[in-house]
Amino acid sequence: MTSQKMIVEIQEWLKEAAAFIRVSLANKVTVSQKSNRTDLVTNIDEETQTFLIKKINKYYPNDSILAEEKGFDTIESLDGRVWIIDPIDGTMNFVMEQENFCIMIAVYENGVGKLGFIYDVMKDELYWGGKDLGVFVNDQKLQQPKDRALSDGLIGMNAYMYGKNIYAAGEIGHASMGIRVSGCAGIELIAMLKGNHIGYISNLSPWDYAAGLVLIEEFGFKYSDIEGKPLTFSKREYFLAASPTAYTQIQNDFVHKS
Amino acid sequence: MTSQKMIVEIQEWLKEAAAFIRVSLANKVTVSQKSNRTDLVTNIDEETQTFLIKKINKYYPNDSILAEEKGFDTIESLDGRVWIIDPIDGTMNFVMEQENFCIMIAVYENGVGKLGFIYDVMKDELYWGGKDLGVFVNDQKLQQPKDRALSDGLIGMNAYMYGKNIYAAGEIGHASMGIRVSGCAGIELIAMLKGNHIGYISNLSPWDYAAGLVLIEEFGFKYSDIEGKPLTFSKREYFLAASPTAYTQIQNDFVHKS
Repeated sequence: MTSQKMIVEIQEWLKEAAAFIRVSLANKVTVSQKSNRTDLVTNIDEETQTFLIKKINKYYPNDSILAEEKGFDTIESLDGRVWIIDPIDGTMNFVMEQENFCIMIAVYENGVGKLGFIYDVMKDELYWGGKDLGVFVNDQKLQQPKDRALSDGLIGMNAYMYGKNIYAAGEIGHASMGIRVSGCAGIELIAMLKGNHIGYISNLSPWDYAAGLVLIEEFGFKYSDIEGKPLTFSKREYFLAASPTAYTQIQNDFVHKS
Repeated sequence: MTSQKMIVEIQEWLKEAAAFIRVSLANKVTVSQKSNRTDLVTNIDEETQTFLIKKINKYYPNDSILAEEKGFDTIESLDGRVWIIDPIDGTMNFVMEQENFCIMIAVYENGVGKLGFIYDVMKDELYWGGKDLGVFVNDQKLQQPKDRALSDGLIGMNAYMYGKNIYAAGEIGHASMGIRVSGCAGIELIAMLKGNHIGYISNLSPWDYAAGLVLIEEFGFKYSDIEGKPLTFSKREYFLAASPTAYTQIQNDFVHKS
């Protein structure tokens, strides 16, 4: 069960975490490499995650947590209530740009997305909503974007997949009105919620998409792994989300074109 | 000769044009194709250009004008004082996103950039400055970004050049910390001025880079066509701008690598 009380709590935690991040940016950020030279983590990622986990443990001690950093990055099952957290989505942007990064929190129950929060910290724009609740930016309710065809919209892309034409991503990009590369899954999913982009193709871990899925599903977008199979929430996967019309076109005319 | 009076006038024109654009976005925007289905122009591009040209003709009747739309897109020479205008840079974003576009104005004298203005309309951020004047965002003076190597920064790219590895753009991207694609030259040049990105590679017309060059030169960035030759201001050209270190690396290790 989720509740209005839980929504308000999460919003308060996010505001507090964002205030901490904004102050931290003015001080020293310690950057480390994870799997390779462009896979970064900072002390702020870790401290933000610790802050959020402490809150969840205090208020919802029986819940499970899946989160990007420090040993929380796998989970046995999605049974019960599960919190899925990316403390800083777009760490490269956080380090290089000091903007264009998000905090993301999702609440799932038995594998079903109930609440999603994507917070663009430096713009102070919190996109949030839930199953049958609608989608909001801060206090303002958003309108569901129109369903548009691939040829009628911009699409967010992972640059590598586009450049190497992985799963025809290059061809999909050329069939669209153009690709955009922001370096942050949260920013790309926000662009879909606003109606700016018709879709997003990338290579993502569950904390990159969990919150966004709740929101884009509420707005009627389709999503899956790039081959059309359900996302597993258990590993990095090639990810596709798009307007219903563009999703079908991408599946039939590109990914599964024989 | 440019003057403080001219700077204030241009800032006033830009504010007036931006107010017109913001109102127009709420009303009907008429979109037309130019050379192909992704090369768009709107009535707002044309009306904004007409507004700016009227101002220049009134206040500086002897000056020449080079501008993107409606027959102003070539100029016989850069002799004397020349205004170079892009009324809406990033028209695709303007149409699809209703944000991430700029108004750009440059003042050149005998081919030398004197003043540059890049106005991110929806963020209400005016980046401006001039030769020996410094670079400002609204009223705040910016600090010159550090010189960084290619491997230490993000780089803005034209998606097509990256995907097709034109002039080794794909390899350059892989040698950097990552590429970003915004679809707007003004946004990319702003990212360099802020120190967010170390460079930008694209295929640009003079009105796409004229204002930005004045500002990035003031901050010590290097620029040229992609082969290292001076930009001609007379046609669409492959464009390179980068921090001094990254510029030399891109020229020696990628573009002219034998």
